[in-house]
Amino acid sequence: MAEYTPLPLILAAEQFARLPGIGMKTAQRLAYHVLNMQSADVEHFANTLISARESVRCCNVCQNFTEKETCVLCTDERRARAVICVVESPRDVTAIERAGGFDGSYHVLHGLLSPMDGTGPEQIRMKELMTRLSGDVSEVIMATNPTVEGEATASYISRLIKPMGIKVSRLAYGLPVGASLEFADDVTLVRAMENRNLI
Amino acid sequence: MAEYTPLPLILAAEQFARLPGIGMKTAQRLAYHVLNMQSADVEHFANTLISARESVRCCNVCQNFTEKETCVLCTDERRARAVICVVESPRDVTAIERAGGFDGSYHVLHGLLSPMDGTGPEQIRMKELMTRLSGDVSEVIMATNPTVEGEATASYISRLIKPMGIKVSRLAYGLPVGASLEFADDVTLVRAMENRNLI
Repeated sequence: MAEYTPLPLILAAEQFARLPGIGMKTAQRLAYHVLNMQSADVEHFANTLISARESVRCCNVCQNFTEKETCVLCTDERRARAVICVVESPRDVTAIERAGGFDGSYHVLHGLLSPMDGTGPEQIRMKELMTRLSGDVSEVIMATNPTVEGEATASYISRLIKPMGIKVSRLAYGLPVGASLEFADDVTLVRAMENRNLI
Repeated sequence: MAEYTPLPLILAAEQFARLPGIGMKTAQRLAYHVLNMQSADVEHFANTLISARESVRCCNVCQNFTEKETCVLCTDERRARAVICVVESPRDVTAIERAGGFDGSYHVLHGLLSPMDGTGPEQIRMKELMTRLSGDVSEVIMATNPTVEGEATASYISRLIKPMGIKVSRLAYGLPVGASLEFADDVTLVRAMENRNLI
């Protein structure tokens, strides 16, 4: 932005540009938009963000975002507590719940192990997961993303849990439903072949 | 978002979704991001927006955004005040300044006439433009967008100003530099032909 652009406008654009997926061009457009909003609307927007950050905490059981001490899913009597599905982020919980078909409980790590970025077991909610494993947990499903970090985190946690006599499973790799063989990448295709099922 | 999603998170996403060009999916991603930010950073972000909205006003001459009574461009002695370039928004000023080659002054309408949306001459900065025309203004350049509303606004203002003996001009239509004839739309091509220049 040029030298005649008011500084507060530039600062607002810089703040928007720090959000994920928002480039400088979009950030400037949003900053200009804020100046055209009613003052009351800008304040309401700002306060909503502050209040979201202040009032939402992590569930003391599964670490998913919630307003209460313990989240709705963890207090739901119908959910099986013996099965824990471990995910990277709260958005993964939303994805699995949207898909349906899972009635166990969750554990949100809020990150993945990534030595390159300095993320070790202490930076993610590992300790909280381990304290849940005493008692009647029968299976831990590792539902981290099929990426290098997701794989590494799944196998690290699996190595810790297996000695405790708890079953550890991993989401299946294979062809996405509706996809075409022609466009599947080689790794996926090899996995789909290895994990073939009798019909 | 599902029923187990904390309400403040939903409200934050709804606020983001009201920004231009931000869909519900992106808004949710941004809302989740806010929860992962440091509290202090969220407050800083929120306060930057409020302060931008509060401290930036419209220049009392050209109506462009500024922190002062009169903006930098309007107080610059080197800018010709006899030529006024009329644009829709502050971002258009930035575009023309970036391109260079114009050393007159600006007038920002903050909108275009659009009877369908209920935007009449009172809703845009028409009155402020007319008060500037007394005295030594020699030319008004209508640099509104080449759209239906931009055209309508340009011709409306032109009809008001011409009787005052002031020259009114319009940005040239033609082929964008570097474009290919093959992909030019018909209207642009007809205009480029009509406005051809001797070489």
